[in-house]
Amino acid sequence: MAKRRQMKLGAMLLGVGRGNSTWRHPDAVTDASINLEVYKQWVRKAEEGKLDLIFIADGLYIEPKSIPHQLNRFEPISLLSALASESTHIGLVGTVSTSYSEPFNVARQFASLDMISNGRAGWNLVTSTLDSTALNFGGKGRQGHPEHNLRYQIAAEFVQVVRGLWDSWEDDAFVRDKASGVFFDPAKMHTLNHHGEYFAVKGPLNIARSEQGQPVIFQAGTSDAGRDFAAREADAIFTGIEHETIEESVAFYHDVKTRVASYGRDPDDVLIFPVVAPIIGRTEGEAEDKYEQIASLVSIEDALNNLCRYFEYYDFSSCLLDEPFPEVGELGRNGFRSTTDRIKANAKEGGLTLRQVALQVATPRNAFIIGTSTQVADRIQQLFDAGGADGFMLGAVLPTGLEDFVDEVVPILQRRGLFRSEYASNTLRGNLELPIPRNRNHVAAR
Amino acid sequence: MAKRRQMKLGAMLLGVGRGNSTWRHPDAVTDASINLEVYKQWVRKAEEGKLDLIFIADGLYIEPKSIPHQLNRFEPISLLSALASESTHIGLVGTVSTSYSEPFNVARQFASLDMISNGRAGWNLVTSTLDSTALNFGGKGRQGHPEHNLRYQIAAEFVQVVRGLWDSWEDDAFVRDKASGVFFDPAKMHTLNHHGEYFAVKGPLNIARSEQGQPVIFQAGTSDAGRDFAAREADAIFTGIEHETIEESVAFYHDVKTRVASYGRDPDDVLIFPVVAPIIGRTEGEAEDKYEQIASLVSIEDALNNLCRYFEYYDFSSCLLDEPFPEVGELGRNGFRSTTDRIKANAKEGGLTLRQVALQVATPRNAFIIGTSTQVADRIQQLFDAGGADGFMLGAVLPTGLEDFVDEVVPILQRRGLFRSEYASNTLRGNLELPIPRNRNHVAAR
Repeated sequence: MAKRRQMKLGAMLLGVGRGNSTWRHPDAVTDASINLEVYKQWVRKAEEGKLDLIFIADGLYIEPKSIPHQLNRFEPISLLSALASESTHIGLVGTVSTSYSEPFNVARQFASLDMISNGRAGWNLVTSTLDSTALNFGGKGRQGHPEHNLRYQIAAEFVQVVRGLWDSWEDDAFVRDKASGVFFDPAKMHTLNHHGEYFAVKGPLNIARSEQGQPVIFQAGTSDAGRDFAAREADAIFTGIEHETIEESVAFYHDVKTRVASYGRDPDDVLIFPVVAPIIGRTEGEAEDKYEQIASLVSIEDALNNLCRYFEYYDFSSCLLDEPFPEVGELGRNGFRSTTDRIKANAKEGGLTLRQVALQVATPRNAFIIGTSTQVADRIQQLFDAGGADGFMLGAVLPTGLEDFVDEVVPILQRRGLFRSEYASNTLRGNLELPIPRNRNHVAAR
Repeated sequence: MAKRRQMKLGAMLLGVGRGNSTWRHPDAVTDASINLEVYKQWVRKAEEGKLDLIFIADGLYIEPKSIPHQLNRFEPISLLSALASESTHIGLVGTVSTSYSEPFNVARQFASLDMISNGRAGWNLVTSTLDSTALNFGGKGRQGHPEHNLRYQIAAEFVQVVRGLWDSWEDDAFVRDKASGVFFDPAKMHTLNHHGEYFAVKGPLNIARSEQGQPVIFQAGTSDAGRDFAAREADAIFTGIEHETIEESVAFYHDVKTRVASYGRDPDDVLIFPVVAPIIGRTEGEAEDKYEQIASLVSIEDALNNLCRYFEYYDFSSCLLDEPFPEVGELGRNGFRSTTDRIKANAKEGGLTLRQVALQVATPRNAFIIGTSTQVADRIQQLFDAGGADGFMLGAVLPTGLEDFVDEVVPILQRRGLFRSEYASNTLRGNLELPIPRNRNHVAAR
């Protein structure tokens, strides 16, 4: 926290958008979630704005009430690899779950993406939030969806295996000398021999380290277990839209950085990215109109469908819309703990009806930064200067949200010296000013 | 077998090559296995030659004796996705194992590659050959490497799940009508609800079918269980270099097509691709010199390293090089059954020493087609006309092997009317003349 760096910026690319109804926006491309040309344009725009990274979220279970983007979308590894060919500097970050993949396969796919992109890969490690995800990964010997804290225990061992596999080869292991016939130095190939509580993985991995050493590990859990995990294992943290005030963001930032230090790590080595969702207009009024337009696209049916996703698809249609928000007990606490606790607390405090809760959750006014480009830049700077962020993740709001931000807000941030005008590096770690992890198997003097 | 089609052609892209020593060839790029630019050039060259597909093989376990290409290479899904952006018509086929992946993840990644490439994806289904692969996928609840026939039983159920997931969405399921707010028709979204012996997968898959309906399924097992599996489940079969005569190839072709028919399928719907490895010279003498050059790169150590891979890394160095090939019992029969049976039979028939066997297996003269472009075209045509092939897979021989073939042999095959001069389709199924699989959930009249 000592030295002052420029802010980092990432953009979430989310096809037809986060909500149930954003695809109905006049500017929306309705097949954007499976349209590679749309993603290519966004990546080019993000790179034009010198952004640090793009981020592809993911999920592994759908049902008819899932939001449109989730129903029919690209898978992150394949999408990011395709986008690697279309870009040269921007980081390529994607979500993969530790609960339904093998560490060897995950280590390998991210290492391969990292090699394909010359050191621009990032892994957003999730443990999968929905109990129902287990229904797509059942069969002989499988255990079902692990409980919240157990998922993080498994994830902690999973990431140790992955990081161990990423260090299978020292950087100078491959000699490739045609004359002598020496392709590699076997002393610089390392077998992991991991035997833990959940995984037994021998190694080595069949791919070397990229220019950035290891892919950057992102994490988004904001529960206590999630924060602690992030402080130990992550390089960067996405935090959701649950911090409604700058004070809350600063408190979260401080809490995580303190945890990072308590594990003997440099607090500067774990970056915190609040998600921000700007709605930018040429005037304040135009920005307000844009917000109203989005909110008006949401029907009460859509709003209830959106709400029930957080509560294990609880059937809210059996409840009265204009009665107080119903008692739902522990529903959703194994998946979206922070989110559901917040929704319930807000409902209670405000004495809100089910209809009010549903519409607020669908288009929560305070989740957006609504204003002119200068106002948006001011608000972002305010949070950055207050010490609540190392950088920001742009949530996908409007179909043109990324374009508006790059064209209108980035130049202001650049003029204020808050954001880069040129990339400082070709790798994601380089641009994020994160250290290249030392290979655990490297012995300085042989 | 009735109607006469043009031949199909694929190219195996294999980085620094198949052998222990091919990377030492003067023309070799020694980091080709992790060099995206090299792969991009190859794909462009293959597409220039109007080839049907490129193929990326794979493996999930290495040790110091593995061949150079296996030690440090791209992973197929990420590599093919990156190459999708660099090409427009050629099929993109990669190996993924059914023994160490989840069917939901495999279905999804290939469907995503298929969408990214607008219908050009192919999956080479393998069950993984090495017992030791299990060492990279161990831990709580895991079973170790399944025995040969059990692996095929698991694979059969796996592919049923994958195909079922691929049919989750009918082609007209996505309405995307902004005015009415209807994004999709829930009646055209299908939940699989698979509950089998090895897998329980609910579905639906969170991605729709591509233009070609489903990715093309390739299979390469040539054991009895492998042939039978292919006849039931595959769209195409790669056959190795184990058929030394045209008669053997024709017999294999006939056997597989008969099995296909016995399962009630049209024999034309399963294509057979023998692997051919041409070494092309401007004269016969130049081609012979090229072969000698490759063979001379192989040291006896390399040859023994290569040999031991098929025999579970048996330590042949404890045997005398100039004594008869040693008795190795059942070693390797759970992995490379066809290959090890053939090596042992050849050794016995020929009364060969360990040294002779090792060098022959490393650079088996009869595995190549050595000659001028006309001679290579003649030999390929001969096998095609005899009814031993629907098409051919070019094995990676020389670093310039693909270029030589496209520049010198393809024009001859085109002049003879044996191979296309322009792509007939943008999809892999289209070019292979394979039918688009009917969606099992589609009901003609509603």
